[in-house]
Amino acid sequence: MKPEILLIGTGAIGSFYAGKLWQAGAQVSTLCRSDYEQVRNKGITIKSIDGDFHFHPHSVIRNISEYSGRPDFIIVATKVLPGIDIPSLIGRNIDPSTSIVLIQNGIDVEKPVAVAFPENEIISALAFICASREEYGLINHQDFGRLVIGRYPSGISGKVRILRDLFTEAGVKCDADDDIRTARWKKLIWNAPFNPMSVLTGGGSTYEMMNSESTLKVVREVMSEVVRLAGALGHHIPETFITKNLEDTAVMKPYKTSMLLDYERKQPMEVEPILGTPVRLAREKGVDVPHMETLYGLLSLIDRKNTGR
Amino acid sequence: MKPEILLIGTGAIGSFYAGKLWQAGAQVSTLCRSDYEQVRNKGITIKSIDGDFHFHPHSVIRNISEYSGRPDFIIVATKVLPGIDIPSLIGRNIDPSTSIVLIQNGIDVEKPVAVAFPENEIISALAFICASREEYGLINHQDFGRLVIGRYPSGISGKVRILRDLFTEAGVKCDADDDIRTARWKKLIWNAPFNPMSVLTGGGSTYEMMNSESTLKVVREVMSEVVRLAGALGHHIPETFITKNLEDTAVMKPYKTSMLLDYERKQPMEVEPILGTPVRLAREKGVDVPHMETLYGLLSLIDRKNTGR
Repeated sequence: MKPEILLIGTGAIGSFYAGKLWQAGAQVSTLCRSDYEQVRNKGITIKSIDGDFHFHPHSVIRNISEYSGRPDFIIVATKVLPGIDIPSLIGRNIDPSTSIVLIQNGIDVEKPVAVAFPENEIISALAFICASREEYGLINHQDFGRLVIGRYPSGISGKVRILRDLFTEAGVKCDADDDIRTARWKKLIWNAPFNPMSVLTGGGSTYEMMNSESTLKVVREVMSEVVRLAGALGHHIPETFITKNLEDTAVMKPYKTSMLLDYERKQPMEVEPILGTPVRLAREKGVDVPHMETLYGLLSLIDRKNTGR
Repeated sequence: MKPEILLIGTGAIGSFYAGKLWQAGAQVSTLCRSDYEQVRNKGITIKSIDGDFHFHPHSVIRNISEYSGRPDFIIVATKVLPGIDIPSLIGRNIDPSTSIVLIQNGIDVEKPVAVAFPENEIISALAFICASREEYGLINHQDFGRLVIGRYPSGISGKVRILRDLFTEAGVKCDADDDIRTARWKKLIWNAPFNPMSVLTGGGSTYEMMNSESTLKVVREVMSEVVRLAGALGHHIPETFITKNLEDTAVMKPYKTSMLLDYERKQPMEVEPILGTPVRLAREKGVDVPHMETLYGLLSLIDRKNTGR
């Protein structure tokens, strides 16, 4: 029997992956906020390098209290921002058998959810994808798409395997990782320098950052700080990961980071999960991360100014 | 007998201080570039908190070869930018008795001039002033105005005293300092954090930077790096200078830095004398300045993008 899924957050990431699960036969409902009317009336259209498709959610709700089913998976794909309270979006009546899947960026994003729902399995997921929402209900999937998923804090459960197999069936490359927290640090190696620096250099592309000696030096240093900090927290990442990230980025087509897109739209940026939480963990552990501290200081002020807070 | 002065660079700083020397009775000529027509026809108007005045230079030239006098002082008040070759502005026919006065920001700005004119006395000057050129030939002096001058690389000469006395006569507070290179590092304590960060935070005012915990931390760290680096280079600055700078800045009215003004006008910023040179000196000396390195990396790319280079 195909699983029942409730998606919270119908931005690019959530819409794309839930759409793929719909393609694999899952029953997909969505909890929408600003895009409620559009999605309820017209569903979701995915323009994708892997083939366009359209789907209409089984039900479209505005508040969790309107949901009458018992989902096998609640997929949370909102941004991680101070203004978004994920436990309250999930609500109180969740069944212990429901797994909560977090497809989100950054470090320790699982913690508040794990604390709020101690009986539920948390599945943590990392999306390596280039996609954006062009308008409500219209997603453009431009590149990549791989997922890495694992049970939080570690391990691979039966539900993780079910999810992986469904994604695979739908043509999404999906790897199960039994150490998903380390995987988050590995992803941060790229996110911690390139996302903030793309904003702080006035819209610098990855190409520009790679091809300026003085910015490339900062990129390398931030990557080293992430590796050292992760190590101090028990997540061993070989130094070769840095070289690999730099090599991969050097051959990428120039790419606008998600932070830069948020900044340009005057939307809040994911400053805390990408920089704030790592910087606080570094202070707690006594690890020196001066390059990240500098980016964090600059970015947190620019974010407040940009959103008029 | 009142001295003969040639001013190179009729921006806010040069026009204001040369105008003050004119008020004290000096014969002031100016070498202008883009503002040549305006200054030749209408002279220079200074709106100043200390009293407005207007003066017409003794002669206005476009190229040093047009100058027929033998100045006691050539005052250079251009920005310090890769595109401005100061020795070639001064020219080859300078008399050995002429002192070259550099009213400019940053570290080691005297070096190329001292190398090009080994026979001439170099007087190094630091301006603590808030002034801007509103249009060609129209300067607005908004606040402060103190000068610190000294012979480069050290000492106080007769010509330094003459200049100090002239400024004093004109009502400009002017201190002679026998260790002007250390004085430059002391000024950098303020400039190195606040100038770059005002641009990198999307137009952050000093007030905003002082009142955000995460930016204030970066400000402090950059100040500490400047003090440590200066010390390693033989310029001892007590740590109390940092506290003093922070206290003074906390009570300043919100202030737009000169780098931010340049950035907003899409003019090149003084990235090298404020950050590039200190960072290179740090690398040579093996002093760790990661916060400055980060600001430098970001700012050098943003500067290139902003000026379309």
